[in-house]
Amino acid sequence: MTEKDIPFSPQEYARRISKTRQAMEQAGIDILFVTDPSNMAWLTAYDGWSFYVHQGVILRKDGDPIWWGRGMDGNGARRTVWMTEDNIRPYPDHFVQSTERHAMQHLGALLAELGGETARIGVEMENYYYSAKAHMTLEATLPRATLVDATGLVNWQRAIKSDEEIGFMRRAARIAETMIDGAIARARPGLRKNELVAAIYNDALTGVGDDWGDYPAIVPMCPSGADASAPHITWNGDQMQYDQCTFFELAGVYRRYHTPFCRTVWLGTPPDEVRHAEEALIEGLEAGLDAARAGNRACDIAEALGAALTKAGIERGARCGYPIGLSYPPDWGERTISLRSEDETVLEPGMTFHFMPGLWMSDWGLEITESILITDEGPAETFCNRPRQLFVKE
Amino acid sequence: MTEKDIPFSPQEYARRISKTRQAMEQAGIDILFVTDPSNMAWLTAYDGWSFYVHQGVILRKDGDPIWWGRGMDGNGARRTVWMTEDNIRPYPDHFVQSTERHAMQHLGALLAELGGETARIGVEMENYYYSAKAHMTLEATLPRATLVDATGLVNWQRAIKSDEEIGFMRRAARIAETMIDGAIARARPGLRKNELVAAIYNDALTGVGDDWGDYPAIVPMCPSGADASAPHITWNGDQMQYDQCTFFELAGVYRRYHTPFCRTVWLGTPPDEVRHAEEALIEGLEAGLDAARAGNRACDIAEALGAALTKAGIERGARCGYPIGLSYPPDWGERTISLRSEDETVLEPGMTFHFMPGLWMSDWGLEITESILITDEGPAETFCNRPRQLFVKE
Repeated sequence: MTEKDIPFSPQEYARRISKTRQAMEQAGIDILFVTDPSNMAWLTAYDGWSFYVHQGVILRKDGDPIWWGRGMDGNGARRTVWMTEDNIRPYPDHFVQSTERHAMQHLGALLAELGGETARIGVEMENYYYSAKAHMTLEATLPRATLVDATGLVNWQRAIKSDEEIGFMRRAARIAETMIDGAIARARPGLRKNELVAAIYNDALTGVGDDWGDYPAIVPMCPSGADASAPHITWNGDQMQYDQCTFFELAGVYRRYHTPFCRTVWLGTPPDEVRHAEEALIEGLEAGLDAARAGNRACDIAEALGAALTKAGIERGARCGYPIGLSYPPDWGERTISLRSEDETVLEPGMTFHFMPGLWMSDWGLEITESILITDEGPAETFCNRPRQLFVKE
Repeated sequence: MTEKDIPFSPQEYARRISKTRQAMEQAGIDILFVTDPSNMAWLTAYDGWSFYVHQGVILRKDGDPIWWGRGMDGNGARRTVWMTEDNIRPYPDHFVQSTERHAMQHLGALLAELGGETARIGVEMENYYYSAKAHMTLEATLPRATLVDATGLVNWQRAIKSDEEIGFMRRAARIAETMIDGAIARARPGLRKNELVAAIYNDALTGVGDDWGDYPAIVPMCPSGADASAPHITWNGDQMQYDQCTFFELAGVYRRYHTPFCRTVWLGTPPDEVRHAEEALIEGLEAGLDAARAGNRACDIAEALGAALTKAGIERGARCGYPIGLSYPPDWGERTISLRSEDETVLEPGMTFHFMPGLWMSDWGLEITESILITDEGPAETFCNRPRQLFVKE
């Protein structure tokens, strides 16, 4: 077996576990069972596309975390996690997508073996891949234990990034810039959208220098014209056309760390309505960046943006951003803070967000966004450095 | 708004809904709530990367299905589903990833409005994206309704493919062949894995002729050497090396229909152990294809394969295949039948499987697989047509 290539220092993982244990203690949790693939990777470095079957990481008050998953993925754990063999606990394959048994029966037995029979066990009830059935089966398997909702418990520990993490996101930002540059340069009437996305993937994965690109937690979006009125329509084989906008909603990814970045191109001459929206959006972005300071709150960013848009007669109705960092499909957000008027979370240095005030109108869309870092003082730093504008190709 | 491009005929959707209603009746379900994105698309043609927030399709005993999802995805529904505007029911954005409210509260109110207050409501407790918390919230919102586990109810209706669907899978197969051809042709010592995957994506998305390629529900896998001992490790920036195997686990995708296809390349001269395994695997594949006949059972395929492998001293321990067709991340299997000894499901014409007997050994891996169609008589037809062998590049 070749040398393991663990992405972060042992100190970084120790810091993460220590923070998580503090949160467990506050929540009165003896054993935490983490299923969100991003949380699993954040704690243990586990990396593999195996989240379509039940798996997780077990964290107790003492000792290293335990990876639990499908037998065939045990080798993947051996090759990616920083823990030793004792802490890799695979289950037999007949538990996989069986109509007779459930993997949570195996997990329940393991948790009992680890002293969890009457413990308070934290489970991520609203995180990805923890199904309703998984929860009911675990409850039935451990009738004397108390299952406690630990949704987002680890996600919240991830909000403030370490210098090592910010370094990864800066690398991802260089990749994101290359992707946007390439997409705008290639955009032309007649280009098929699937070919455009192929070129975007090429830039995404080739990366920058030695920094190879990883897969994004969301595929590249680049809807055109009326499809751009919908934020999550994926590509097809249609050709780009004159007098249409196309937005690029992309992320550069370096070793699972995402730096999302969006820009929009208009082929032809944008109508006044679009130019008007662009102007308001840029004003709102700049006001939001200025409000994105340590000590301010999440809602201050949203309100600074909202004021500029309202003045221009635009009502968005949706949140305008979310925390970013380590992610697996289906989402590259961290699902904790939301940049919206009701969220009063205080911003702290090291927090990272995708400030994402996309405009999806009746038959066009405009996305100009920034991934940002809250700094010790002054306005937020943007990870990417490209003109904040609608790109027009006459 | 431009003309909608619905993938299948109205008759096809009518057939699907009628089959599903029969299954609902058998299960005593008044209203079915479907969250699996593949099931949503299969019933309504909804297509978008929005499954990271709560959404679903509601099917009653009468009337067209109802799309329910996030406000901003309402436009995506308008542009992709075959139903009319009345049947698109978005929820406000403040339900998204909120710590104060849950989207299932909105759904509960909608179901009550639709007459579901005391109904038997089927929910997909073990399908993707239906979280434990979603279930508990829905239960609390509709205290007089009975929530019935409808896991896999729609998935089972998808098992036998229509001619229209098989047509899509044949197109996906042509794309899969191109992807494998390209990967094997490009493989050489010194090639970085991320660049290889970029080229694979290029073939995948460019497609074949007018048939543009869609995104796969699982990213391309191509681990080398000891990494190939683990089935689900994704790429990195390492170079391919002499005296190493690399397997390609890929799917061609045409409008969300997947035809998976795997081959392995060895750079240099494979050791006897690998040649021995290749021989047994091919014998097992051929025996399995011969057993894959209408009237036989799923386990017959697994046992035909197993006999050849056991004779050669190889114990796999994992299932050797699963049904395929329409899929969204994180999995391209249908999660109903499994090709393994305990599954006695009778094979019927029109069923489609990925016959996937991957070998993941201590420090190498070998994947030679076939996507297959059960025909009216005779052995299974393979969707792809490429030599069934280990590819060796000296």
